Amino acid sequence: MKKEIASLIELDRQRTLLAHIDALLGWDQETYLPKSAVDERAEQIALIQGLVHEKAVDPRVGQLLSALEKHPDLEPLEKAYLRVSRREYDKETKLPPDFVMELARQTSLAQAAWADARRTNDFALFAPHLEKVIELNKRLANYINPHGRPYDVLLDLYEEGSTEAGIAAIFAQMKADTLKILSKIQSRPQVDDSFLHRPVSADRQARISLYLMDAVGFEKDKGRLDTVAHPFTTTLGKSDIRITTRYIEDFLASSMFSTIHESGHALYEMGIDPDPEYSGTRLAEPVSMAIHESQSRLWENMIGRSKAFWERHYAKIQEMAGTLDDVDLDSFVLAINKVEPSLIRTEADEVTYGLHIILRFELESSIMADKLAVKDIPEAWNAKTKELFGLDVPNNSSGCLQDIHWSMGSFGYFPSYALGNLYAAQFWHQMHKDIPDLEAQLAAGKTSVPLAWLRKNVHCHGSFYKPDELVKKATGEGLSPRYFAEYLDNKYAAVYGY
Amino acid sequence: MKKEIASLIELDRQRTLLAHIDALLGWDQETYLPKSAVDERAEQIALIQGLVHEKAVDPRVGQLLSALEKHPDLEPLEKAYLRVSRREYDKETKLPPDFVMELARQTSLAQAAWADARRTNDFALFAPHLEKVIELNKRLANYINPHGRPYDVLLDLYEEGSTEAGIAAIFAQMKADTLKILSKIQSRPQVDDSFLHRPVSADRQARISLYLMDAVGFEKDKGRLDTVAHPFTTTLGKSDIRITTRYIEDFLASSMFSTIHESGHALYEMGIDPDPEYSGTRLAEPVSMAIHESQSRLWENMIGRSKAFWERHYAKIQEMAGTLDDVDLDSFVLAINKVEPSLIRTEADEVTYGLHIILRFELESSIMADKLAVKDIPEAWNAKTKELFGLDVPNNSSGCLQDIHWSMGSFGYFPSYALGNLYAAQFWHQMHKDIPDLEAQLAAGKTSVPLAWLRKNVHCHGSFYKPDELVKKATGEGLSPRYFAEYLDNKYAAVYGY
Repeated sequence: MKKEIASLIELDRQRTLLAHIDALLGWDQETYLPKSAVDERAEQIALIQGLVHEKAVDPRVGQLLSALEKHPDLEPLEKAYLRVSRREYDKETKLPPDFVMELARQTSLAQAAWADARRTNDFALFAPHLEKVIELNKRLANYINPHGRPYDVLLDLYEEGSTEAGIAAIFAQMKADTLKILSKIQSRPQVDDSFLHRPVSADRQARISLYLMDAVGFEKDKGRLDTVAHPFTTTLGKSDIRITTRYIEDFLASSMFSTIHESGHALYEMGIDPDPEYSGTRLAEPVSMAIHESQSRLWENMIGRSKAFWERHYAKIQEMAGTLDDVDLDSFVLAINKVEPSLIRTEADEVTYGLHIILRFELESSIMADKLAVKDIPEAWNAKTKELFGLDVPNNSSGCLQDIHWSMGSFGYFPSYALGNLYAAQFWHQMHKDIPDLEAQLAAGKTSVPLAWLRKNVHCHGSFYKPDELVKKATGEGLSPRYFAEYLDNKYAAVYGY
Repeated sequence: MKKEIASLIELDRQRTLLAHIDALLGWDQETYLPKSAVDERAEQIALIQGLVHEKAVDPRVGQLLSALEKHPDLEPLEKAYLRVSRREYDKETKLPPDFVMELARQTSLAQAAWADARRTNDFALFAPHLEKVIELNKRLANYINPHGRPYDVLLDLYEEGSTEAGIAAIFAQMKADTLKILSKIQSRPQVDDSFLHRPVSADRQARISLYLMDAVGFEKDKGRLDTVAHPFTTTLGKSDIRITTRYIEDFLASSMFSTIHESGHALYEMGIDPDPEYSGTRLAEPVSMAIHESQSRLWENMIGRSKAFWERHYAKIQEMAGTLDDVDLDSFVLAINKVEPSLIRTEADEVTYGLHIILRFELESSIMADKLAVKDIPEAWNAKTKELFGLDVPNNSSGCLQDIHWSMGSFGYFPSYALGNLYAAQFWHQMHKDIPDLEAQLAAGKTSVPLAWLRKNVHCHGSFYKPDELVKKATGEGLSPRYFAEYLDNKYAAVYGY
């Protein structure tokens, strides 16, 4: 290994260690932090994110990058590592350290305020924090590219190369596909899922979640499960990937699929290994939020809501839940695939899910273009909900306060969720071509088979390929929304018998 | 405020923030860390402790201290702050940064190895780690004072001004007092505590622990309770003091008194406030480990094992435990004060507790003087247990592997526990003089009364006074072992009727 690469890796690993410490501070804030400690935690997070930033903009990184980029003889791994390092270095060096710490501090406080506002259904508690976070996001975009449109700049942070216009075009197609499928579904009798709403205690749901983690291959010596208001996955180290869920007593399916979803994220993180020499570096990080989401959605929906998966596991869940004895496998599989426009994104079915993202994408676009003020967000949210879903929003906790993302400062993140669905369907399509007996393997409990495919084609690469290169290498073509539409249409034709 | 003081405080607060982050890393390692993440955590802890050290030895601290120490007009708070800052600065600047990180890394790994060794009763798993930790402790002592006796240097780290000879003299008196009282107790019929060993589920014990935290005034918005192998209290912020306990199904009293004990530590931390301007500085830290332990022991034993306390709370505990319906208050109070030589320090009664400390003190003395090799520790431990308690040690988990302290690198810490008992008794004696109706207040559930006394006389001062100054100010005289002996003799004369 070239000694400059070794030096770069050494500096990178220090940054990663600090980033993992930051992840612990964040995880603890969401899971176990005492109520009165929120302000101090914000200071701690600001300090650590300041140190992470300091490591990221170390002038030695810039010098090493410049020297290496002129090197005549770079291997593919080295080239990829320089590419991702350069992208991050250029971004980070544009951000003043005080700004980085201010963003960390304000978003930590905003998250706590959001949780209170959501619990008490009081948008006014959150509004002043949201004002600040939006202003900081605009400054962020301006630091990174003062000539770009702010929302374009933010979107590119989460999915390299994406723009508002590009995403709008994809979403237009996705919306048309969705509405077409939805109208076919709505022409048919609704399926019965009432038994999924029979009360199941948090203890039982927790045991079911732990069982499902095993079922999908989550390595429990390298991670754990905790409960939070808004489930997420976070990486505190190569062998410390933590997922979270929540238990809604009268909706067992919520925790079940949330746990499989987050496990999908965790499996990706656990499988990243472009090369042992690059462990703990940016090359051993997930390539994008959308690819990350493709993994969670693939496990949650394509595997986790398939009849094949439940052929193996349903009897065990019946036993653990204690409320499904009179429900046969087919009825259960129909119920977990029920499609119905609804208010809460995280509980949405996979057909209408995209509409939730379109709603947020359009609002974010207006906010970033200064066309929508914070005080008007609830009204705009409710109007779009009426337009897209035909539903009235009874309160802000079921509306514009439902998601944690804005409080985290993550403007531009939401589109990744919908792009993730599209990537997932394209991977799923290819996986069936490569593994003709995939359904039989799943029915036999062999989730290790799709996991091995994902490890080889997606996980292991980390950031070696860009997202569009990765999907081309794995499936032979760039991202196309048609696989998702086909997947939905085929699946729901069977579920609803249209 | 002088501007140099303000600058010193600013630097100090950065160090404190990092120290609190380090505390979170340690807390998480003991409570929730996935098994495979131990090595990474050691690296994270080493990095943060390196940064804490870097802040502590910042040359600006030295310059500010030198300038301020020459100032002709210092207020008492300023003088105290300079004194504690100077002591820490001089200590920290003697330690090479690499050594600090090495100590952090090795003790983090040693703690994990100790937990495995204790669980599997395999001293060999821990021995190589212990070798390293001992060698590092000797180097630590040598860095701080190459001319001092190593064990003296280490003891002074925990209790300023203490020496092996001084502690040995106090312990000789304590041992004589203990053996005299013990022989009186052993001349009488043993009390029955069999009902404390009826199985109580962890869930019930957890509810009881949460109730007892309220009963002693633990502010739950500023802290929390979790379960661990070896209970401890840790400070992650001014408003984030976390205690831990463990639930032994057939020994309810273990978690009850462990929780009260750790709550006593937490109440001290929660009450420190020498002056708002000095919050987040070394002046707002506990003055010594022995004073800390005086608080936990006072709550655990003097309050928590008093009849007065249980007059208020026993009926509620009967209800929550579900196993004490046939046990009256007097029988319960006798049982929780049963005295009997036993193997495990943390479960020991308050009479024989000091003998456990003497055992460790004598072994540490031999280890630090190179008179006892690691491989010979089990045998030496077992021999001393026979000598002091008349008991055989059936396995190392109940012997030399029972305590976490050596794995944490804390040689010289144990004597603080016994000194804490002595301080506690002296405070307790004075508290009765100052509050003649103390017992009646306790019987009425007013734990806020002793808490207010402790807040005013001990907690609030932080490190403003040295330990011996603090005890003189609170009780009118320096530390004397006679109050503890008197307390024990009075109490157990009643319990055992001698």
